[in-house]
Amino acid sequence: MDEPVLVWAEPLKEFCVRVFTKMDIPEEDAQITANVLVAADLRGIDSHGVARLRRYVNGLRNGMMRARPEVRTVAESAVTALIDAGGGLGQPVSYRAMEKAIQKAREYGAGFVTVRNSNHFGIAGYYAMMALEHDCIGISMTNAAVLVVPTFGRDAMLGTNPIAVAAPAGKERPFVLDMATSTVPRGKLEVYNRLEKPIPLGWATDESGTPTTDAGRVLENFKQRAGGGLLPLGGAGELLRGYKGYGLALWVDIFTAVLSGAAYADLVYPKDEAGNPLPSAIGHFFGAWRVDAFRPVDEFKAAMDDLQQRLKNAPKAEGEERIYIHGEKEYEEADRRASEGIPLNPKVAADLRAIGEEFGVKAEF
Amino acid sequence: MDEPVLVWAEPLKEFCVRVFTKMDIPEEDAQITANVLVAADLRGIDSHGVARLRRYVNGLRNGMMRARPEVRTVAESAVTALIDAGGGLGQPVSYRAMEKAIQKAREYGAGFVTVRNSNHFGIAGYYAMMALEHDCIGISMTNAAVLVVPTFGRDAMLGTNPIAVAAPAGKERPFVLDMATSTVPRGKLEVYNRLEKPIPLGWATDESGTPTTDAGRVLENFKQRAGGGLLPLGGAGELLRGYKGYGLALWVDIFTAVLSGAAYADLVYPKDEAGNPLPSAIGHFFGAWRVDAFRPVDEFKAAMDDLQQRLKNAPKAEGEERIYIHGEKEYEEADRRASEGIPLNPKVAADLRAIGEEFGVKAEF
Repeated sequence: MDEPVLVWAEPLKEFCVRVFTKMDIPEEDAQITANVLVAADLRGIDSHGVARLRRYVNGLRNGMMRARPEVRTVAESAVTALIDAGGGLGQPVSYRAMEKAIQKAREYGAGFVTVRNSNHFGIAGYYAMMALEHDCIGISMTNAAVLVVPTFGRDAMLGTNPIAVAAPAGKERPFVLDMATSTVPRGKLEVYNRLEKPIPLGWATDESGTPTTDAGRVLENFKQRAGGGLLPLGGAGELLRGYKGYGLALWVDIFTAVLSGAAYADLVYPKDEAGNPLPSAIGHFFGAWRVDAFRPVDEFKAAMDDLQQRLKNAPKAEGEERIYIHGEKEYEEADRRASEGIPLNPKVAADLRAIGEEFGVKAEF
Repeated sequence: MDEPVLVWAEPLKEFCVRVFTKMDIPEEDAQITANVLVAADLRGIDSHGVARLRRYVNGLRNGMMRARPEVRTVAESAVTALIDAGGGLGQPVSYRAMEKAIQKAREYGAGFVTVRNSNHFGIAGYYAMMALEHDCIGISMTNAAVLVVPTFGRDAMLGTNPIAVAAPAGKERPFVLDMATSTVPRGKLEVYNRLEKPIPLGWATDESGTPTTDAGRVLENFKQRAGGGLLPLGGAGELLRGYKGYGLALWVDIFTAVLSGAAYADLVYPKDEAGNPLPSAIGHFFGAWRVDAFRPVDEFKAAMDDLQQRLKNAPKAEGEERIYIHGEKEYEEADRRASEGIPLNPKVAADLRAIGEEFGVKAEF
């Protein structure tokens, strides 16, 4: 593989902001979206970073995403709200929805905001983590393009539907769980396919619904809509309890879409009769709980530190050297990439440059 | 194996109530606890039903559980509360905590109650399901005895820490996800051990932290505290993403114990210096969201029905005939057992009779 291209977070953000504003995205929305994208690149979640810029550009160009959507608060109570995103980018509405949830939590102890008629919002963890500086626990979920088969099903019927939960700590890093409810995302199959490596049984099924090691076949089936797909966490059937991962994905669909009036299950990312894409109509769920509504913050943080230390200091399995807390690897990666630069995939870097040329924005990052 | 003993729910409950009241449990607390236990037997979750009565009797006898605990509301706001259970049975305090969460949800849109200093509360799903008749979505979590190894760890450091989520539907059954965050519970290993069957790799590890097929060895290691334990959902290491199940278990520990001031990780079910058990000091988390705080109930229920039908009617994997929604099997089992009786394990039936004799309560069920 080609060498990665080392880039820096701030100019990378600035580049994205300038591309977005050229596409008529308001300055503040552009800033928010660029922040969320580059946060993913910093944290090592490359699949959800600036590599996505091309899809956003395409979505804005073909009208599937609106640059200046009419965002509307459909319902609101002291601790809840439902927002219609008007088909805009997922990030700005999600950022503001999470701000609203946190504001409600600060005022009343907890707050929850659902969003419908939205688009891809980047990494779920970004929004959950917004709660941390307010000494709140944050949660965020989204539904997503149909890729995951239900237990005993042949066809993909659900998205990778991630759940993110972030809880503050004291001396230790915050706990940041940010997980797709499928075993792996589609991107992982693409990596194995490029390397011509067999995927482990338990990641995906073929067009008959049978677990397969052939990543290329699964990816081709996605294109042809031929059946099969990614497996929920726990794999196929009941042996390793794949119905639990399937249940988590359904939970996310209910909170993000059924509760908000967004599209759910295989209704997301619809197409018209001629096969042309229509707006994705996906939904999100955001929430925050104020820690000190339950317990003094310093006691909570001390217990979070002790919990983490107990786990990290516990005896290791044979051949292993370290037990991680969720979010720890990503915090370490973000520190490293902030000081050493972000290693961009050369194809992504080339694509960014092409986008820059299309919009007359210099690719200086 | 011996034939099961067919018993009926109502007299079985009545028997439990009479045993509990003989142990100085207040009548209402006895009723609640019996209801939760027998609900598990009806739903086919035999491991959490009246089979547990002996442990409760022992706990009450040796002072690990208090019959008349001092239950105290430590903190309360409009939508949150923290309750100290005073070391009583888990069920009565949990039932009332969930009632409080629902009351807050009805008044403000959402409500959350954590409980500390509690004991085993039965099936998590019972409490989440309490929200359904109020057109609320319910959630319930508990931490539990240390049985689960963290990813890359050798020793059990966390409980099977279940999460339950219940959401109402219209013509379809409610969605009821009620899942341990480990792949399987300890009881499943006991079943395989009795049958002398190898367990699938991915369920448990031996004393070196290596996946094993030997259920007896894992169970013996638990007794000796020799290391190893149950694997989180997703199995060992990173291949099938066991760190996600580990992350879910940590999430539950944070919400149930760190947020409430209960014991967490390996601090639950402590022993004194002489090795005698001390009160378990576990914690719970309960929550409710009022559906119509977000969206009209009839719209929500219609979408829930459609979501379920889409999944159930989707094409099946080769060799499979049915796609289930979470809770569906348990609802069907409860209907069957309500009309045909509960098939009690003969050992459990004999033990109940022995308990009846100890307390002078006739075992008529």
